[in-house]
Amino acid sequence: MDVFQRSIVLHTELKGKIRVENKLDIQTKEDLSLAYSPGVAAPCEEIAKDPQKVYDYTIKSNTVAIFSDGSSVLGLGNIGAHAAIPVMEGKAMLFKKFAGIDGFPLCVHTQDTEEIISIVKNIAPVFGGINLEDISSPRCFEIEERLQDIGIPVFHDDQHGTAIVVLAALMNFCKLKNCKMQDLKVVINGAGAAGIAIARYISRPDPNASKQQLVKSLIMCDSKAILDRDREDLNDFKEEVLNYSNPQNSKGTVYDAIKGADVFIGVSKPNILRGEHIETMAKDPLILALANPIPEIMPDVAYAHGAYVVGTGRSDFANQVNNVLAFPGIFLGALRSKSKRIDLNMKFAAAEAIANYVKTPSRDCIIPNALDAGVAEAVATVVENWVKNSK
Amino acid sequence: MDVFQRSIVLHTELKGKIRVENKLDIQTKEDLSLAYSPGVAAPCEEIAKDPQKVYDYTIKSNTVAIFSDGSSVLGLGNIGAHAAIPVMEGKAMLFKKFAGIDGFPLCVHTQDTEEIISIVKNIAPVFGGINLEDISSPRCFEIEERLQDIGIPVFHDDQHGTAIVVLAALMNFCKLKNCKMQDLKVVINGAGAAGIAIARYISRPDPNASKQQLVKSLIMCDSKAILDRDREDLNDFKEEVLNYSNPQNSKGTVYDAIKGADVFIGVSKPNILRGEHIETMAKDPLILALANPIPEIMPDVAYAHGAYVVGTGRSDFANQVNNVLAFPGIFLGALRSKSKRIDLNMKFAAAEAIANYVKTPSRDCIIPNALDAGVAEAVATVVENWVKNSK
Repeated sequence: MDVFQRSIVLHTELKGKIRVENKLDIQTKEDLSLAYSPGVAAPCEEIAKDPQKVYDYTIKSNTVAIFSDGSSVLGLGNIGAHAAIPVMEGKAMLFKKFAGIDGFPLCVHTQDTEEIISIVKNIAPVFGGINLEDISSPRCFEIEERLQDIGIPVFHDDQHGTAIVVLAALMNFCKLKNCKMQDLKVVINGAGAAGIAIARYISRPDPNASKQQLVKSLIMCDSKAILDRDREDLNDFKEEVLNYSNPQNSKGTVYDAIKGADVFIGVSKPNILRGEHIETMAKDPLILALANPIPEIMPDVAYAHGAYVVGTGRSDFANQVNNVLAFPGIFLGALRSKSKRIDLNMKFAAAEAIANYVKTPSRDCIIPNALDAGVAEAVATVVENWVKNSK
Repeated sequence: MDVFQRSIVLHTELKGKIRVENKLDIQTKEDLSLAYSPGVAAPCEEIAKDPQKVYDYTIKSNTVAIFSDGSSVLGLGNIGAHAAIPVMEGKAMLFKKFAGIDGFPLCVHTQDTEEIISIVKNIAPVFGGINLEDISSPRCFEIEERLQDIGIPVFHDDQHGTAIVVLAALMNFCKLKNCKMQDLKVVINGAGAAGIAIARYISRPDPNASKQQLVKSLIMCDSKAILDRDREDLNDFKEEVLNYSNPQNSKGTVYDAIKGADVFIGVSKPNILRGEHIETMAKDPLILALANPIPEIMPDVAYAHGAYVVGTGRSDFANQVNNVLAFPGIFLGALRSKSKRIDLNMKFAAAEAIANYVKTPSRDCIIPNALDAGVAEAVATVVENWVKNSK
C-alpha cells in the first residue's frame, strides 16, 4: 500500500484523529456541583463582571480554532468544508504534539469574505487564538487583515507559517555564506498566500518592525511572468508588491528573473526549473523549492548544477521547510503572553529563534528538523519574551 | 468554603475543564505523513467525491457543538458569551462522561436570531449534532425550528432535555398511581423554553408522533397569570399553547389553576408555592418544582401538605429532574443512527427509556439517579432502534 492507501486505513480506524477529554472525572455529586450546576455559577458571574477572567477559568487560555472554508486545501484546491476536515484535524494534532495547545477544527460552508469575517468575530469568545488555514488567495489577505483587532491573535498559517520558516532559512543561509540579507538578490516564484507574505516580510518596510532586515533586490513572479508595472492583470496584492520590488521594472519570465539571483524561493508548481536554470544564477545559490509534494526542482538536480543549499517541503530530503516549525511555538508564545495579535516583530522573533535553534548551520541543515520537539518551546520563549519586553 | 468558592478554586486549578487529545501520537515521519501531509490528501479527496464519507474519516461521527449566545445562562440571565463558557464546558464534560461524545463549546457574541441561524448552518460540517444551550425564550423556538433541515440534529436542551425527563417522571407517576396520562389534570407554571416544550410534548397533537400520549387537561401559567384567550400580552408561542390547553378559558393566578390539579410542573421561580396551595390540589399530587437552585416549594413542605411525589432540580433531594438523563443518550442514539434530526418520536422513546430504567418506581424514585452511568446507553439504544425501525 502507498502512503495514500495507508492514510485511508488510518483514518478509517481512528474515525477522527482528535478527541475531547475531561480534565476531571465526574464521579460524585460534589464533582458535578463544582464543575457544573450550581457551583459553575460562580466563575460565570466573575467573568461577567470582569471578562479578562475568562483566561483564568476557561479553556480560552490554551485553545486555538483551526478555521478553514476549504477553498484552497493542500494542493487539492477548493474541495469545500467537509473535505477539508482531515487536514484541520491533522493541524490540531500538530498543535497538541508540539505545543500542548488544544486546537479544534472549524470548517465553514461559506466562502464569502464578509460572512467569514463575521463568523470568526462571533466565535472568538471560546478561543485564545484563531489559526486561519487553507483559505484561498487573495481573499485570505483581506480576511486576516480585517480580523486583527478582535482582541485575540488571528494568524493565517499559509502566509506566515511558511514565510517565517523561509525567513529562518534565509538567516542561516546568510550565516553560512557570511553575507547580509539586504545584499541578496531574491526571486520569489508564486504570488499566492505564502509568496506575498514572504515578499512583505523581506522587502516591505514596516516602521514598527524593529527586527526587520530588508532585502533590497526582490523580483516576484506569478504563474505568468515577472510582476512589472506595465502589467494590467495584477490584483491589488500583487500591485502592492511592486511598491517594494522590481525597482528596474524588469520584465520577462521567471527564467529571466533568476539570472544572477542568489536565492530562488518557489511556492509555485512542480518541475518548473531545470538544472541549466540553476546555472544562470549567482554562485552558490539558495534554492527553496517548496511546491508540494513535487518541488520546482529536485534537490539532486539542483545540487548537480551548482546549488549551494536546497530546501523543499518534503520530509524525505534535508532542509524541510515545514510550517510546523513556526505555528505551534508562535501561538504558544502569543497565548502565554496574552498578546492581542501576532505582529511582525513576533514573527521575526520566531524566525530568529528557529534559525538560532540550529547551532551550526550547514548546507544540509539550515533549519531544524520538523519533528524536533524542542523548537516550539524555543520559539514560544522568544516570542513571549519579546512581547513582555515590548510592553 | 461554600460550593461557589470551591468551584472557583477548581476552575482556577483546571484553567478549562476539557482538553483536546490526539488519538495517535505523532512520533515518526511516517506518522506525520499518514495523519497529515501528504497522506491526508486521500481522505480529503474521498470526502470531496462523497460527502457522506466525512462520517468515516473525521471526528464528525462523534462530535457535538455546545452552542450558546449566553443570553439565558442558568439562573444568571443574559451574561454574554464569555461568561457562558464555564457552563458549556461543563456540558461538554457531561457529554463525555455519560455518552463518550466529544462535545465542544462554542459561544458567540451575537444574539441576533438571523446571525445565529447563519453561524450554526455554516459551522455544521465538523459536527454530527448541535446542542443549543441557554438561548433565551422566545428566540430559542424560532432558532431551533429553522435549523431542523441542516442535515444534522439540532436540539435545544433547555426545551427538550427538561421536557423529556419531565415526561419520564409523568410516565412513572402514572405507573405508581395506576392511572393514565390522558386523565391527569396538569398545570405548568413558567412559559419559557422548558415550559412551552413540556406543554407541546403532552398536549399538542402531532400526527407524526405515534408514541405521543396526550394530556387532555392542561393549564399553563406565565409569571403573570393563567394563559387565557383574553390576554393581549402573549407572545406567539404562548398564544400557540392556547390551541391545545385551557379549553374552558379559565382565568386567574397559578393558585387558581392548581386547585384540583393532579400535577404541578414548576419551571418558574423560587418559593412561589406554600403548603396550603398543595392542599387545594387533587389527592396525592405530583409536584415537580424545578426552579434551581431554590425550588417553587421545598420537598419537605410539599410532602407535609399532601404531595405524593416531589421532584426538584437539585441533587440533594430524591427525584432529581436533571436533563443529563436525556441529552447524552439521545445524542448518542442520533449519532449512531446518523439521524438528520431528533424528532418527537425519538424524544418520546428517550422519555420511555428513562422511565423504564427505573424497574420499580416508588415515591422516592420515579426517575433514575442523574449519575447512573447506565441511563445514557439505555436511552441511546432505544433511540437508535426507533430510528432504524422507522426507516
